[in-house]
Amino acid sequence: MFVRFALTADLQFSGEIPAEAAEAVEKTVTDSNTVMFRRGVPKGAAEDEIGRITDWKIEGNTLSLAIESGPYTRVHDALFRFRKQITATLGRFRLGLRDILVTRYEITLTGPVPEGLKIPTLPFISSAVVTAETIELSLQVSATDLEQKIPDRIVKLVEEKIEALTYGGKGEHWELLYESGKKERFFNGDPTAEMIERGWIKHALSRGQWIHGPQSVQLFRAFEQIVMEEIIKTLGFTEMIFPKLVPWEVWEKSGHAKGVYPEIYYVCTPKTRDPAYWEEVGDYFKVTGEVPVEMIREKVDGPIGGLCYAQCPSFWPFVQGQTLASDCLPIRLFDRSGTSHRYESGGIHGIERVDEFHRIEILWLGTPEQVVETADKLHAAYKHLFDEVLDLEWRSAKVTPWFMAQEGMLDGEGVNERIGTTDYEAYLPYSDSWLEFQNVSVNGDKYPKGFNVKVQTGKDCWSGCSGIGLERWTASFLAQKGFDMNNWPERVAALVGQQKELFRFL
Amino acid sequence: MFVRFALTADLQFSGEIPAEAAEAVEKTVTDSNTVMFRRGVPKGAAEDEIGRITDWKIEGNTLSLAIESGPYTRVHDALFRFRKQITATLGRFRLGLRDILVTRYEITLTGPVPEGLKIPTLPFISSAVVTAETIELSLQVSATDLEQKIPDRIVKLVEEKIEALTYGGKGEHWELLYESGKKERFFNGDPTAEMIERGWIKHALSRGQWIHGPQSVQLFRAFEQIVMEEIIKTLGFTEMIFPKLVPWEVWEKSGHAKGVYPEIYYVCTPKTRDPAYWEEVGDYFKVTGEVPVEMIREKVDGPIGGLCYAQCPSFWPFVQGQTLASDCLPIRLFDRSGTSHRYESGGIHGIERVDEFHRIEILWLGTPEQVVETADKLHAAYKHLFDEVLDLEWRSAKVTPWFMAQEGMLDGEGVNERIGTTDYEAYLPYSDSWLEFQNVSVNGDKYPKGFNVKVQTGKDCWSGCSGIGLERWTASFLAQKGFDMNNWPERVAALVGQQKELFRFL
Repeated sequence: MFVRFALTADLQFSGEIPAEAAEAVEKTVTDSNTVMFRRGVPKGAAEDEIGRITDWKIEGNTLSLAIESGPYTRVHDALFRFRKQITATLGRFRLGLRDILVTRYEITLTGPVPEGLKIPTLPFISSAVVTAETIELSLQVSATDLEQKIPDRIVKLVEEKIEALTYGGKGEHWELLYESGKKERFFNGDPTAEMIERGWIKHALSRGQWIHGPQSVQLFRAFEQIVMEEIIKTLGFTEMIFPKLVPWEVWEKSGHAKGVYPEIYYVCTPKTRDPAYWEEVGDYFKVTGEVPVEMIREKVDGPIGGLCYAQCPSFWPFVQGQTLASDCLPIRLFDRSGTSHRYESGGIHGIERVDEFHRIEILWLGTPEQVVETADKLHAAYKHLFDEVLDLEWRSAKVTPWFMAQEGMLDGEGVNERIGTTDYEAYLPYSDSWLEFQNVSVNGDKYPKGFNVKVQTGKDCWSGCSGIGLERWTASFLAQKGFDMNNWPERVAALVGQQKELFRFL
Repeated sequence: MFVRFALTADLQFSGEIPAEAAEAVEKTVTDSNTVMFRRGVPKGAAEDEIGRITDWKIEGNTLSLAIESGPYTRVHDALFRFRKQITATLGRFRLGLRDILVTRYEITLTGPVPEGLKIPTLPFISSAVVTAETIELSLQVSATDLEQKIPDRIVKLVEEKIEALTYGGKGEHWELLYESGKKERFFNGDPTAEMIERGWIKHALSRGQWIHGPQSVQLFRAFEQIVMEEIIKTLGFTEMIFPKLVPWEVWEKSGHAKGVYPEIYYVCTPKTRDPAYWEEVGDYFKVTGEVPVEMIREKVDGPIGGLCYAQCPSFWPFVQGQTLASDCLPIRLFDRSGTSHRYESGGIHGIERVDEFHRIEILWLGTPEQVVETADKLHAAYKHLFDEVLDLEWRSAKVTPWFMAQEGMLDGEGVNERIGTTDYEAYLPYSDSWLEFQNVSVNGDKYPKGFNVKVQTGKDCWSGCSGIGLERWTASFLAQKGFDMNNWPERVAALVGQQKELFRFL
């Protein structure tokens, strides 16, 4: 899209601008148009692509400006460059700049507009006219909004939406990397149904949530032990504990704040800890036997953030704003300290699709080469683990990273080709489908940039992560191997040991 | 308090009540007053303590009643007993009962009213008059409210509040059980400050929340390993996974819904997963760099519950409504699958007082004898562990269980004396104070009753729980032993091993 900007603004000074200042103002305008506004503009830019003051007028203590631009020295940048000059000019007349009122701000985008484009509903956009060829936006913005680059961000957002509509269909990239080939199948049922039947798990009282009995946990811990031995110890990952309640600030920096909202469990805090403030809530429950949800809603602040969604963003404040010494890189970490939560679609699902789940999250950072090398080593270790230890029927595929999709970078142009996600999928005989049961991502400089982490050399800092979902490992394993431990790979059976049958119900 | 009730109600029938029915109605009233309402009333109850119809009148299709009572066959119970009789009586006149309108409902409590009594603000209470000797409540209630025993619960609630005001000061029971005696102290500083200084932990971005680096986690895992060996394996506890998001239903049944509100992190869910519904939220962030909290607030439902507070309530739906075979008891379990969260008071605290923490929760159930026996074994194992393995300066004390305090059972009358909580406290040299670093509770039939769990014999099912807080163990241990591993007990030092210094910052 070709973009044009136009603004008018009133610069209000501390006193009347005298007639004898007009000449100096005119000179400042001419200097700005011919010199200041040209700085940093690429050679060959057309005259009307560059910001320029097209009109000005003095009235009382106000200097009114009209500025137009294309993509270079955009009108708000021009305004602030001019401000610097004019305050010096009128300072000589003992006048100080008191305020800037933006009286009009227009953006025109020209180019093919895809059908279905929805102009964002934002407080800054006072009107929008969309045709097949143009988008005209009128903004209501303050000088502070302009300093915060609101117009640029609005243009970027509209362009992303156009891109998503134009290339959206082609965006779902899926490229097979490896296939284990068919393995012997011992079971044809739905493992969740069988686990329920055997009393291994029971549905808990919230949506997509299970209570795991001893037998299920034995399998979880067997997998965890295998991961410890084959991945964590072999490749030298060190345990840390990442927080599980995620405040907005973390998702603002990690980029999740761009689009993660439909799947979040949100967290709110009490407006106060004063027991007297909460007494009526307890009283209502004591008298009715029901918790008064609407009453509580009025008594909480927030949401302040949400429950752990991706597991690694919470790590980054540990290194935020720091420069890492080269000799401590790569850093290889993992966390297994708590639950992750996703608001999944309703309906009946098994443990392969849950709202509350348990994941070992692996995280590493270093130079781009170190990060790619660690990813390669992980892939090799996983391959050995799934082929030799768990004997699974699986495949892996390179897919478009979620954040690229969410950030509208759908065609991946210009992104280093090693950046991206590899999904590991296991075959589920009972549903003749493939389940994504874990992944490995090379995230480039996304997180280090978001959290302002640098490396000693001054070169790029990269990171990667890999999530091992215990529910999905269990779903995949049981779907293929079934419940007769004689059909299980020896090492898994040995680690599980005697299955514990603790509960007997009448 | 002595309690009196009075109600008037209109019973509306399907047609006009004929004059010839009056005699039958009178007989039903007399029968009710002299026979029906006396059933179940203790001998020796005074005449005016028992429910009786004091007046009645027929007008059109309506039978109006006035009923009064003391504590026996309370007016609403009398009303429903009478309903059964009168529908039979007037059925013979081909009249069916269509509706019951409660036109007046009064409760009078007589007895000393403590100063400061706050009558609960509840939708059912339309007015209240309180003097030094009486409380008069007028209720606005439907027949359904009466069937749900709302008046009884209001009386109980007011009595609890009176009791809390009267006995509140004496309620905080603390009784020393054991003292280890003074131990050699190696450190006089605040362990949190020292951990920060050494880069073991860093404050995370939410309140009372820390990111634990490798060295801190090594200590956590050393403690966990010791707990596994000394407690879990020795006494035969089996691992389960309890959910960490707690919906209201769990806290309604566990009793936490009575008063846990000031300290809860509440959880809300998206009104829908439709990405279009959430687009404006992401757009706003993309343009401003800030998450629009108020906009999100309008787009979420709930709160549906909160984050794990006590760790054991979430277990109980696993056995809810079941009868346990005697030969599987006692059942001994533990969970270490995720974080607990408490909205603590603000200000600066160390890791001894955090909003997000990590706890190994031990839970057992069985007959009262089995539950007490397990508690005794746990106490012995903890004593050995703190005296011999960790070599701590500690003490234990029996304290009033939280739920007894919350339920107004402050004087503990009639409660089996083994029910209650034992707190374990460690001495903190740097603040010359004692830190409650873990507990053991015998909860009686509280949870089995709340979740309707029975045992084969038909006798009481009891349960107990014990929370091992890793942050508090760490705070206690480091406060006494300091950071020089030469001063640490051998087994802890061996389990921690070489401290991992992964990060080097410039």
